[in-house]
Amino acid sequence: MTPADCGRLAVVGLGPGDPRYLTPEADTALAAAAALYGYGPYLDRVPARAGQSRHPSDNREEGARAAAALRHAAQGTDVAVVSGGDPGVFAMAAAICEKMETGPESWRALDVVFIPGITAMLAVAARIGAPLGHDFCALSLSDNLKPWELVERRLDAAASAGFVIALYNPVSRARPWQFGNAIERLRGHLPPATPVIFGRAVGRSDEQVSVVTLDAAAATPADMSTLVIVGSRATRVIARPGRSPLVYTPRTAAEVSV
Amino acid sequence: MTPADCGRLAVVGLGPGDPRYLTPEADTALAAAAALYGYGPYLDRVPARAGQSRHPSDNREEGARAAAALRHAAQGTDVAVVSGGDPGVFAMAAAICEKMETGPESWRALDVVFIPGITAMLAVAARIGAPLGHDFCALSLSDNLKPWELVERRLDAAASAGFVIALYNPVSRARPWQFGNAIERLRGHLPPATPVIFGRAVGRSDEQVSVVTLDAAAATPADMSTLVIVGSRATRVIARPGRSPLVYTPRTAAEVSV
Repeated sequence: MTPADCGRLAVVGLGPGDPRYLTPEADTALAAAAALYGYGPYLDRVPARAGQSRHPSDNREEGARAAAALRHAAQGTDVAVVSGGDPGVFAMAAAICEKMETGPESWRALDVVFIPGITAMLAVAARIGAPLGHDFCALSLSDNLKPWELVERRLDAAASAGFVIALYNPVSRARPWQFGNAIERLRGHLPPATPVIFGRAVGRSDEQVSVVTLDAAAATPADMSTLVIVGSRATRVIARPGRSPLVYTPRTAAEVSV
Repeated sequence: MTPADCGRLAVVGLGPGDPRYLTPEADTALAAAAALYGYGPYLDRVPARAGQSRHPSDNREEGARAAAALRHAAQGTDVAVVSGGDPGVFAMAAAICEKMETGPESWRALDVVFIPGITAMLAVAARIGAPLGHDFCALSLSDNLKPWELVERRLDAAASAGFVIALYNPVSRARPWQFGNAIERLRGHLPPATPVIFGRAVGRSDEQVSVVTLDAAAATPADMSTLVIVGSRATRVIARPGRSPLVYTPRTAAEVSV
């Protein structure tokens, strides 16, 4: 087969969950697909269209899902793999690339497109002000695929250099202690009053956003639907009359602190 | 005035520049505004609508633009301030918050909403694969509002801890040497063959995306429309038959490296 004969694979970011975040580009790619793959609850967000097959799978099966989607596309089918948020941020795009690199040559010949979406940290930040308004990091707290010592090293590096830190995958049933450990680690670098934002299910009907201080963060409930943003020493809270406070990190950093 | 009597201010992310990236939420907010504020070329992307006033300003006038928009909204007007990409990432959201914190009480009483958009690093990453598929940082190379020593410290921290690094604002006419200096700094931490992605005007008709190695990056042209992604030691390039290569960072990190 020449590349032109191959199927097409679109790796599509759905954004935080409500259709108002879905870009026209993503919507077009979903409408054009003959087969849809994804984690079940994400697939459920995509409206049913006649003639499309749907292939839901479990949350922890990214590798198998990626391989199944590539195999299907290599048969000449127009396939879309969906991710919540942005597929390139702790989601399906890297899993697809991993399988493309190691799989059959025909998978590398496919017409693959990655379609960005609003990732959770942007949605949570927008709900509360501008906590990511200065330099920041995005770090997954899952140690399923990396050693916990590496997470600790990155927390140290980011906090001591003054980055705001967005924590993806803070807690799961199989990882009960890691989030508390991470917060304790960050308390070694940052003042107790540092603002910490918890955004759960942002963009969905059961959305919850709260701001606590770093010394109360370890005791604040979080789960796999929660995105946590830990401020830097520069992050500020604006009290407002009759409205919830805003949190932001100023654009200006006057000196090398810490 | 009670809060209900005040105007409304929406800080709206336009995404990378083409309407296919504009979320329905952003489109709705733009349509509802009576007055639009923004950097001229960003405002030019918004379709003209009857009855809307437009207030373009220069790129380096974020503070004055934020104050003008807040003043206008506090008069009871529905105002939208536009940003390219996401307003919360090195853009107008932090400038609005700064003015809200220090300005008149009536500005803090306003109904302010921040509407996320596809920020440049997500758009560039999607064009090339999944370079942000593992832990990463976003860092502005502009030293207009922070000392260059702080930028260097953050480059050291991020590269030595294995973060992929997205560099915003790499070069401007007033900042000719900073990008080369940053790349030299990163060469002290990363191998010469580390992939570096240059994405210019992504999502626009004159889009250019290229991949070079770290040892060639300092000599690669960049400007204020360029977003640069510097890989980590783990970032990989996939050669493809008859297609451009993909770049991605695997989800798995086996050990604490460097």
